[in-house]
Amino acid sequence: MKKSIVLFSGGIDSTTALYWALNRYEKVCALTFDYGQRHKVEISIAQKLVKKLSIPHKIMHVDLKQIGGSSLLDINLPLPEYKRVEQIEEGVPSTYVPFRNGIFLSLAAALAEAEGTKEIVCGFNTLDSPNYPDTRSQFVKAMEDAINKGTKAAVSKRKTKILAPFVNMKKSEIIKKGLSLGVDYSYTISCYFGEEIPCQKCSSCLLRQKAWEEVDSKDPLIFRLEKEGKL
Amino acid sequence: MKKSIVLFSGGIDSTTALYWALNRYEKVCALTFDYGQRHKVEISIAQKLVKKLSIPHKIMHVDLKQIGGSSLLDINLPLPEYKRVEQIEEGVPSTYVPFRNGIFLSLAAALAEAEGTKEIVCGFNTLDSPNYPDTRSQFVKAMEDAINKGTKAAVSKRKTKILAPFVNMKKSEIIKKGLSLGVDYSYTISCYFGEEIPCQKCSSCLLRQKAWEEVDSKDPLIFRLEKEGKL
Repeated sequence: MKKSIVLFSGGIDSTTALYWALNRYEKVCALTFDYGQRHKVEISIAQKLVKKLSIPHKIMHVDLKQIGGSSLLDINLPLPEYKRVEQIEEGVPSTYVPFRNGIFLSLAAALAEAEGTKEIVCGFNTLDSPNYPDTRSQFVKAMEDAINKGTKAAVSKRKTKILAPFVNMKKSEIIKKGLSLGVDYSYTISCYFGEEIPCQKCSSCLLRQKAWEEVDSKDPLIFRLEKEGKL
Repeated sequence: MKKSIVLFSGGIDSTTALYWALNRYEKVCALTFDYGQRHKVEISIAQKLVKKLSIPHKIMHVDLKQIGGSSLLDINLPLPEYKRVEQIEEGVPSTYVPFRNGIFLSLAAALAEAEGTKEIVCGFNTLDSPNYPDTRSQFVKAMEDAINKGTKAAVSKRKTKILAPFVNMKKSEIIKKGLSLGVDYSYTISCYFGEEIPCQKCSSCLLRQKAWEEVDSKDPLIFRLEKEGKL
């Protein structure tokens, strides 16, 4: 049986990756990390969606506040705010969490090995957020290599694959892909401040806004929040 | 200032690595993982030694029982026992913890990045325990590459190094190295059953015993336990 584990945070990219995997594998396990993020609300939103899809969901705890070094973990560090998406600076942002995706892929690889799953899917992409080093295709390839050298795969012919199908896609293209797969984006959240209602000032909200503009649609999250009287 | 983080479990190899690093760097931080291991006693022994050395000690929590797949984590799985070291089977043993060292190196790399440290030292070695995939030099190199592609090192000239100075040494050679560096092995422990008093049946105890025989010395741990009337 073709199985995969999907890194699933509840945002646009990983939700699309989850639907992409559901379309491709017979068995899909969603893996969400509770890592001490400010925007912990993404976990409960992720749980809602997975429940709707009736697939296994693993929430793994790894407290990256023990390490720190990111405004996404430390509430004493200010989150960068902007008026327009063009204002987002060059360089690795303060919201970068040191080697977060390396840690997540290592834990996912361990789970995959323990459960006999050989494929790990993630929604990493770089075109709209080129300043995060741990979402690039060369990193994904290097992690795959390390996993195949440091697990039982090293002494077996069955290698582990990490699939990042959207790595060279813009967020708006990912959304288009997702819409074609039937993704309901009204329950995906992106805001770094951790509220269901988008701040529209953090880079994550602004990039999401820009992507929906490019798709030429209203963000279903905004639509839902308005309908529920929350906006 | 030359700084390093040392993966330090309190066993023979990593204790020697700690002394090796103290001899080489101006600042050394010992990093111990509380990962749900049976032999949790290694953490308190590690703490004792680090206190004696008056160096910073970070104990990081990452519960690998969430993942399982190892007799070192799951007390319902029997630990393999042997009469002689020659009985230890070929193949990846049940005490292998899925991608443990990949997870540890990822977390160490994140800590190193958050603290501005560029070198990570570990006591991995393969000659006496060739069946663990996550201690081999090709794995260490591949992890180093993944870390340099998935952290700020990807956009900087300052690369992270993982040093495994004993990777091609027998345990008895590591002990000789350690003795030359002044290591007190009477407070290092190895037993997988997690007691201070070695079971002398698990592969870890048997390999330790064999190494001290090769060094032609009495294991200082046994000497101390006898002196304290515990054996």
